[in-house]
Amino acid sequence: MYMDAARELVKMTVGQTGVNPPVGAIIVKGGEIVGIGAHLKDGDAHAEVQAIRMAKEKSKNATIYVTLEPCSHYGKTPPCVDAIIEARIKRVIFSVKDRSLKGCTDLMKDHGIEVIQESNEALEQFYAEFFHGKQLQVPITTVKVSSSLDGKVANDFSESKWITNKQVKEDVFKLRHRHDAIITGYQTIKKDNPKLTTRLRDGKSPTPIILSRSGIIDFSLDIFKDDSRNIIIITENKRLRAPYTHVTVFYLDKCNVENILKKLYASGFGRVLVESGPNVTSQFLNSDLVLHFTLYYAPKLIGGSGRYQFFQTEDIVPLHESKLFTCVKTEHIEDNLKLTFKKEI
Amino acid sequence: MYMDAARELVKMTVGQTGVNPPVGAIIVKGGEIVGIGAHLKDGDAHAEVQAIRMAKEKSKNATIYVTLEPCSHYGKTPPCVDAIIEARIKRVIFSVKDRSLKGCTDLMKDHGIEVIQESNEALEQFYAEFFHGKQLQVPITTVKVSSSLDGKVANDFSESKWITNKQVKEDVFKLRHRHDAIITGYQTIKKDNPKLTTRLRDGKSPTPIILSRSGIIDFSLDIFKDDSRNIIIITENKRLRAPYTHVTVFYLDKCNVENILKKLYASGFGRVLVESGPNVTSQFLNSDLVLHFTLYYAPKLIGGSGRYQFFQTEDIVPLHESKLFTCVKTEHIEDNLKLTFKKEI
Repeated sequence: MYMDAARELVKMTVGQTGVNPPVGAIIVKGGEIVGIGAHLKDGDAHAEVQAIRMAKEKSKNATIYVTLEPCSHYGKTPPCVDAIIEARIKRVIFSVKDRSLKGCTDLMKDHGIEVIQESNEALEQFYAEFFHGKQLQVPITTVKVSSSLDGKVANDFSESKWITNKQVKEDVFKLRHRHDAIITGYQTIKKDNPKLTTRLRDGKSPTPIILSRSGIIDFSLDIFKDDSRNIIIITENKRLRAPYTHVTVFYLDKCNVENILKKLYASGFGRVLVESGPNVTSQFLNSDLVLHFTLYYAPKLIGGSGRYQFFQTEDIVPLHESKLFTCVKTEHIEDNLKLTFKKEI
Repeated sequence: MYMDAARELVKMTVGQTGVNPPVGAIIVKGGEIVGIGAHLKDGDAHAEVQAIRMAKEKSKNATIYVTLEPCSHYGKTPPCVDAIIEARIKRVIFSVKDRSLKGCTDLMKDHGIEVIQESNEALEQFYAEFFHGKQLQVPITTVKVSSSLDGKVANDFSESKWITNKQVKEDVFKLRHRHDAIITGYQTIKKDNPKLTTRLRDGKSPTPIILSRSGIIDFSLDIFKDDSRNIIIITENKRLRAPYTHVTVFYLDKCNVENILKKLYASGFGRVLVESGPNVTSQFLNSDLVLHFTLYYAPKLIGGSGRYQFFQTEDIVPLHESKLFTCVKTEHIEDNLKLTFKKEI
């Protein structure tokens, strides 16, 4: 029951903790919740510490439920284990073991604290993605596509506006909100002139990451005008300089998917969304670094030659090597369909 | 309650009544079912007559529930209205009015029979397709596609076997069972050498309809060997003659979708399934004569150049004119997805 409550805190904070995992903590005493904590932002206090701050002296002899094993290391904040010991918490119930940590549980036990692991399949899966990203030093990456049933994102005239409907757009805003950054190609920026914002009340607009190998950029485009928002350009052009302070240029020797994602992770982006044209989309889907794939299908057939298929590659692979996902959810969004896929890791 | 029972009889007999609609009838007396009837085959007794035969003298003063308005015309069988009057049934409750008939209800009322229409949305939709087909003189047509998520039915090596899985194959057998005929291109027969059968216990294998404009046919292929099964070849080649009596050749001036479907309807095929390669599939999907579209998606991305997209057309249409369906059902078949679409008529 309390672990489910702690899991809700994790769901709430997805997309705002950078390369850190969202964590939720609940302190319970005498059958009542006396403290609630969540890790809100990279650099901020951890969930356990927030919960202890709320519970104050009620922490003493209380039980803390926490979604991930409390840490015992000094990162940007002091160890949670120390805070737990100091607050004289009696029992720690955590769900997922942090494979990157050692000795945390033992340390608490040495101080007479009862430590119990309570398994939770959903949380195991959730954190497995963080460990995976941490190990490879790449963000958790989602590709989003809006397509016709025959896999096209535009007709042969390159007409693509409103393949899917207004309700899908709203859903995409929610998807953007849960990511730190949106990766898109410069061609998409130039063609569609998109804002790449989250038009939801109090929604978070992710940082636009614009890919341009050549680095030939028209800085008069709308997206560069809003100086309240950081923008990153990734390029192979050593000489590219941005004329604005809110635009940062990352130079990479080679702009491939792996290098782009590693650079973004190293810059603190823990969860990125790829929302672009077929070229960038295909490159990301063709890599092994995409964990989530959200496919909005309009119940349409576009036909034509298929110049704008969302997945088109230079290499031809045998069928048994084709990219495989697992469908974890199908939803109707008015007359459109939303299919959610995951890659098994 | 009894209309739902009658509707079950309709569901059971879909795909075996040719150009006639399946109809179910239930005769009720003293709170018990005393007669059950269904139209089983074009030329056989209608549902009402079958039910009266079962109920015998119990029909007198009984109520008959029938899914479609009883007919008053001589077709291949005498009018049902006459049988109802003769059996001295007291009350007729039917669900859908047969727009192609006139005066049936009045005739029964003239004989002192109470006639009530009990609306049923599912049956209305079901029979609307029959009226539509009857009006246009074309069969109810379903296109079936097994595709990757990016709309491809094969990779660039034309490798296509088992895009979807064994469970999908089983589901396709059920789909075949509910159709009178399977339309396929000669190229598909030549390439895949398929049996086009329904390997279900006591399943019905639809008549193969092989399209070959040129009429250049290799009659040594497996499909022609089974002489217990009728096969139809549709061609623009006036001189094509089949070397077997179980193979019939239909000559058409022009083998387009409309001409093919009209010819098949005139030959007694009321419900046909298109199961072919991209060429034939695209032509049918591009016509306005396809009412049902069953799409099996494997959770795969195939990529390549897209030579084998399931929908590829010569004409490019503006997005607002793209072919539109309504998704009426999404199902998981193991790791594959089955999407069922309908065209609004």
